[in-house]
Amino acid sequence: MLYFDCDYSNGMHPAILKRLTETNDEYAGTYGNDKYSDSAKQRIREACGDPDADIFFLIGGTQANAVALDAMLKPWQGVVCAPTGHINVYEAGAVEFTGHKIIVLPSHVDGKIRPDELHILLQAAEEADNKEHMVIPAIVYITIPTEFGTIYSSQEVKVIHEVCKQHNCKLFVDGARLGYALGADGNDITLKFLAEHCDCFYIGGTKVGAIFGEAVVFPHNSAPEHFFAFIKQHGILYAKGRFTGLQFDTLFTDGLYESIGRHADALARQLVNLFVKYGVGEPVVKSPTNQQFVILSHDVMKKLSENVVFEKWGTYDAGHKICRFVTSWSTTQQDIDELEQILKSM
Amino acid sequence: MLYFDCDYSNGMHPAILKRLTETNDEYAGTYGNDKYSDSAKQRIREACGDPDADIFFLIGGTQANAVALDAMLKPWQGVVCAPTGHINVYEAGAVEFTGHKIIVLPSHVDGKIRPDELHILLQAAEEADNKEHMVIPAIVYITIPTEFGTIYSSQEVKVIHEVCKQHNCKLFVDGARLGYALGADGNDITLKFLAEHCDCFYIGGTKVGAIFGEAVVFPHNSAPEHFFAFIKQHGILYAKGRFTGLQFDTLFTDGLYESIGRHADALARQLVNLFVKYGVGEPVVKSPTNQQFVILSHDVMKKLSENVVFEKWGTYDAGHKICRFVTSWSTTQQDIDELEQILKSM
Amino acid sequence: MLYFDCDYSNGMHPAILKRLTETNDEYAGTYGNDKYSDSAKQRIREACGDPDADIFFLIGGTQANAVALDAMLKPWQGVVCAPTGHINVYEAGAVEFTGHKIIVLPSHVDGKIRPDELHILLQAAEEADNKEHMVIPAIVYITIPTEFGTIYSSQEVKVIHEVCKQHNCKLFVDGARLGYALGADGNDITLKFLAEHCDCFYIGGTKVGAIFGEAVVFPHNSAPEHFFAFIKQHGILYAKGRFTGLQFDTLFTDGLYESIGRHADALARQLVNLFVKYGVGEPVVKSPTNQQFVILSHDVMKKLSENVVFEKWGTYDAGHKICRFVTSWSTTQQDIDELEQILKSM
Amino acid sequence: MLYFDCDYSNGMHPAILKRLTETNDEYAGTYGNDKYSDSAKQRIREACGDPDADIFFLIGGTQANAVALDAMLKPWQGVVCAPTGHINVYEAGAVEFTGHKIIVLPSHVDGKIRPDELHILLQAAEEADNKEHMVIPAIVYITIPTEFGTIYSSQEVKVIHEVCKQHNCKLFVDGARLGYALGADGNDITLKFLAEHCDCFYIGGTKVGAIFGEAVVFPHNSAPEHFFAFIKQHGILYAKGRFTGLQFDTLFTDGLYESIGRHADALARQLVNLFVKYGVGEPVVKSPTNQQFVILSHDVMKKLSENVVFEKWGTYDAGHKICRFVTSWSTTQQDIDELEQILKSM
Repeated sequence: MLYFDCDYSNGMHPAILKRLTETNDEYAGTYGNDKYSDSAKQRIREACGDPDADIFFLIGGTQANAVALDAMLKPWQGVVCAPTGHINVYEAGAVEFTGHKIIVLPSHVDGKIRPDELHILLQAAEEADNKEHMVIPAIVYITIPTEFGTIYSSQEVKVIHEVCKQHNCKLFVDGARLGYALGADGNDITLKFLAEHCDCFYIGGTKVGAIFGEAVVFPHNSAPEHFFAFIKQHGILYAKGRFTGLQFDTLFTDGLYESIGRHADALARQLVNLFVKYGVGEPVVKSPTNQQFVILSHDVMKKLSENVVFEKWGTYDAGHKICRFVTSWSTTQQDIDELEQILKSM
Repeated sequence: MLYFDCDYSNGMHPAILKRLTETNDEYAGTYGNDKYSDSAKQRIREACGDPDADIFFLIGGTQANAVALDAMLKPWQGVVCAPTGHINVYEAGAVEFTGHKIIVLPSHVDGKIRPDELHILLQAAEEADNKEHMVIPAIVYITIPTEFGTIYSSQEVKVIHEVCKQHNCKLFVDGARLGYALGADGNDITLKFLAEHCDCFYIGGTKVGAIFGEAVVFPHNSAPEHFFAFIKQHGILYAKGRFTGLQFDTLFTDGLYESIGRHADALARQLVNLFVKYGVGEPVVKSPTNQQFVILSHDVMKKLSENVVFEKWGTYDAGHKICRFVTSWSTTQQDIDELEQILKSM
Repeated sequence: MLYFDCDYSNGMHPAILKRLTETNDEYAGTYGNDKYSDSAKQRIREACGDPDADIFFLIGGTQANAVALDAMLKPWQGVVCAPTGHINVYEAGAVEFTGHKIIVLPSHVDGKIRPDELHILLQAAEEADNKEHMVIPAIVYITIPTEFGTIYSSQEVKVIHEVCKQHNCKLFVDGARLGYALGADGNDITLKFLAEHCDCFYIGGTKVGAIFGEAVVFPHNSAPEHFFAFIKQHGILYAKGRFTGLQFDTLFTDGLYESIGRHADALARQLVNLFVKYGVGEPVVKSPTNQQFVILSHDVMKKLSENVVFEKWGTYDAGHKICRFVTSWSTTQQDIDELEQILKSM
Repeated sequence: MLYFDCDYSNGMHPAILKRLTETNDEYAGTYGNDKYSDSAKQRIREACGDPDADIFFLIGGTQANAVALDAMLKPWQGVVCAPTGHINVYEAGAVEFTGHKIIVLPSHVDGKIRPDELHILLQAAEEADNKEHMVIPAIVYITIPTEFGTIYSSQEVKVIHEVCKQHNCKLFVDGARLGYALGADGNDITLKFLAEHCDCFYIGGTKVGAIFGEAVVFPHNSAPEHFFAFIKQHGILYAKGRFTGLQFDTLFTDGLYESIGRHADALARQLVNLFVKYGVGEPVVKSPTNQQFVILSHDVMKKLSENVVFEKWGTYDAGHKICRFVTSWSTTQQDIDELEQILKSM
């Protein structure tokens, strides 16, 4: 069976397992007060070109979104995002659970938000006669890559950031799969760029080779007051924090993090090209990252499912579904070659 | 000055003041355990043709929405509404404050939701592969009249209710201005109808002649378990509940509630017709109730403002705004006649 | 029947009804933007000797506690109070509903907190090794009068306030029955004193002659940021705010507020003295205000209940209960005289 | 340096690391839908003698407490515990963050609750005249071992459970360190016993040899409705759930879980006996588990700190502090022998 359903159904990257094994017998401080966490933070700060970045390690993406937004938002403020944004769809209402409203922008097939539409929404909020009866938008949430694997150019982020600043909003970047953007063909966004152009972002580990872990970055000492207490109160403070630190220390040694992204992205490009080459399916949107969304007929889906595991993402039309194919650090050239044999014969 | 800005900038209806005065010296039970509350409930049950309706009196509309939805929703469930729904726009995130997500349908100029769009949304939610990661829609919220003064026909509500039942959703009707729907030309919705076709609705008093008060109705003994505790916990239990009871007892004596609606609606129809007759402005949508939304040029707005108070509701285009004119129990034929003189001369 | 069960089972003070009647036909701004609210705020500011006090009118006590504490507390902070404090016992968890912890001090029969015990608790919190895992006490909540009708001297409040300041805590005074403290024999606390020695207090109207209403005072322009939005989000913004304003305008005209307190307190002193005089029962604690807690045997309770309505408050011992007798603006000398006849004959 | 400060400052047990390494290259389902999680659940069900137990794996103790209590409690209900209970002191208000009140019992030096005091509290709650204004106690929370390392006998738990049932309360057992109770000298509580005598308990892994992980057990198919959604909404659903499953599968193979407890407990007994033997300090309470609380003078503390790491827990008197010494799977006989040399020479 070939597995292209998920980038977290595999284990951890061997380099991480190696260090886990090497350091397991050591004594270390708890809750992230340990030398591995310190070193990881230092490496991330260097990668971000921001010696003053505040960095916190968490376990997963939903909790990173929920706790950071909760701590950054005042009770009367809300967060703006695409209707397809992860926080709006796949987090079981975790943001609303903390009492905050999500305000949605118009929908686009590439999953990105548009600066002009953002400007209209924020301006209308500012000019509303009854604005003291309304939730005040205060953070704009984007994902890089988006839910559909697409990426923003640095120019696009800059413009969004300008709109945010113009309306006293902060920019939050969900980077649960950030490595796959950093490694993408045509990408010109860097960690340094993010540290300059957003107010909070996180570097996803869980979906990029770690056993778990997300590194939340507040550039330039901008962590919300008492952020540690928010983490504890949300129930997401990890006791043996050394292991999250150790993983990010490894991911940020010798460029491992980006190289995982490049590896998976390259194989994903091959993958989608094979679908096109053999006339099996067309991508619903051009994605340069490790997630490919391909339109497949019901017949093709059925046949392909005999040998390949992938995810049905949604309905395209009466006869077709949008299917998701995902690569990861553990995907190999051989997997792609085997897929080619299967597609060729369909 | 002529006031058409609001239906709660006036005092209470004289019939209510009269009974307040008559009964003020009496001793009564607290928190709604009193004979006036009992009598009011009885009258409402009769008006609803539902002897088993559970009825709770609250102070205002936002709290009625927030507490009823909070009590009716399980933590993993959300409420569906029009993007223009009051809970989604003008309640400062009160629903999200209690931890629940609002899921929005497509937008329409008349403020109504469409059964087919509702069906698509609810069906997609049911069929989603990842639905355990998603908020489950469980209540559909509509307002009668809508934010734009329009009303649903009984047939429209029936179809919406059918879609709800088909998808295990409940139907909630925000009736903060319900009296103006009941009194509207062409309306065929009654309290009896609502008691049969929705799971919770409330009868607004604050905007329909009361000093304050909303009557929340759960038809056929369907009040959520421990609803009283929810009211207390939300901080909205009123100590001298006799006075809310007394007001609804008065509003539901001799048909006062509906007659307030009819009076204001009739004057509102005259009002909007005058705008059209004198070519001053066109309604943005046909409203048979006490709120009229008229498109006015900036010049007209400025001149009219010298003698008339009304609300700027939103932008129509570069040169025009949508303006809201509202009538109430206290609006008189003379107010309309004076407005005619002003419009005639513009 | 003689009613001593409650100070809000009566109607509103005649002076309030009179002004309600006089002004009912007027047009007024909504949500507290009206001349009566402005005038009431001005009168309260004068009574407090604080021209810069921020004042907000709400409907009831539980909501005043919940919204003010919620707005004053950061998410990681908690509120300290006596175990018998109203927020800890009789508000159905309204404070916790907003996400905040209540931290309890040792219990005392007079319902008061002790500065030395407060100091110990706050110091321990400051010195705790794991304090980043703990809720940080940030507000101290007291009630004046207490749940048992007792009052703090100004000296006691000063010392508590000093302890608060020493530990970076704020002092919050629940004044749901404040009028009965201001009118009490031996009381030396004034509104001017409170405006200097606490960070927030409210002046209760619901239990002191109003139809509803509490005036929340943040001395010296210290209202929490966006407090209006908190009020709206809690669902407790009152549309026809003019009526709350009007009531406080009346209560603060010609000293009505304090005179209501003095009247009820004087009758309550007579009442408790009669119980002692006729050997029917002893007060459980000396209360100079309108609430008297008397220890009655089961037999006495039963017999008294034939002619008098009062509340069973709690168990004293196997044969006795603590019973509450309450006076109000509507209690008369004749009520007390009739009670004497009853007690005399027992 | 000798480390006795913490049972989670060490790495994972070698048996866990071994299996992590062996299985890392495998593909597996996500979010706990994998064969290791299935197997672990099966083993735990067997250990509990409850083939129908619902089992959920989480990352840490605070989140296990918060999410299980949140899901088990209705909005109007609260949880009762000792004032020293972990949820009441060291979880930064995580329970209140989800909207629920913690109701505290009287304090005892052994950290246990007393059935008679529990009965009094629950009965008073049931009999209160104003109980609809009060939070209703619905769960009793205990920890095994307690915060002070003590354990309940099975008889004690039975009686507490009886009191709970008598008052319609559920019993919740926080087992973050449960292994150390199971392995303790004199302990007669088993997993089978817990599955019969409480409504929810969890088996702590983080502090008992795992890299992370807690297994929440709802005996006899009693998991709260939609518990998975609660987990997701709290932000604590772990993507690569196979690794939690794998750890518990290992801990419940060949009795590893209990043997870790026995090992650490035996060394802890030696440890505390050495303090007594050499007159260095006395235990503040008799603990048969891996945490020992010893009263040390300031001088002793200072000198001991030169070679031994331990935690200052609290003040005993002006000249002494209570200090905590903790053993774990990684503590060795050699550690104890070295400690003896140090204590001997003091």
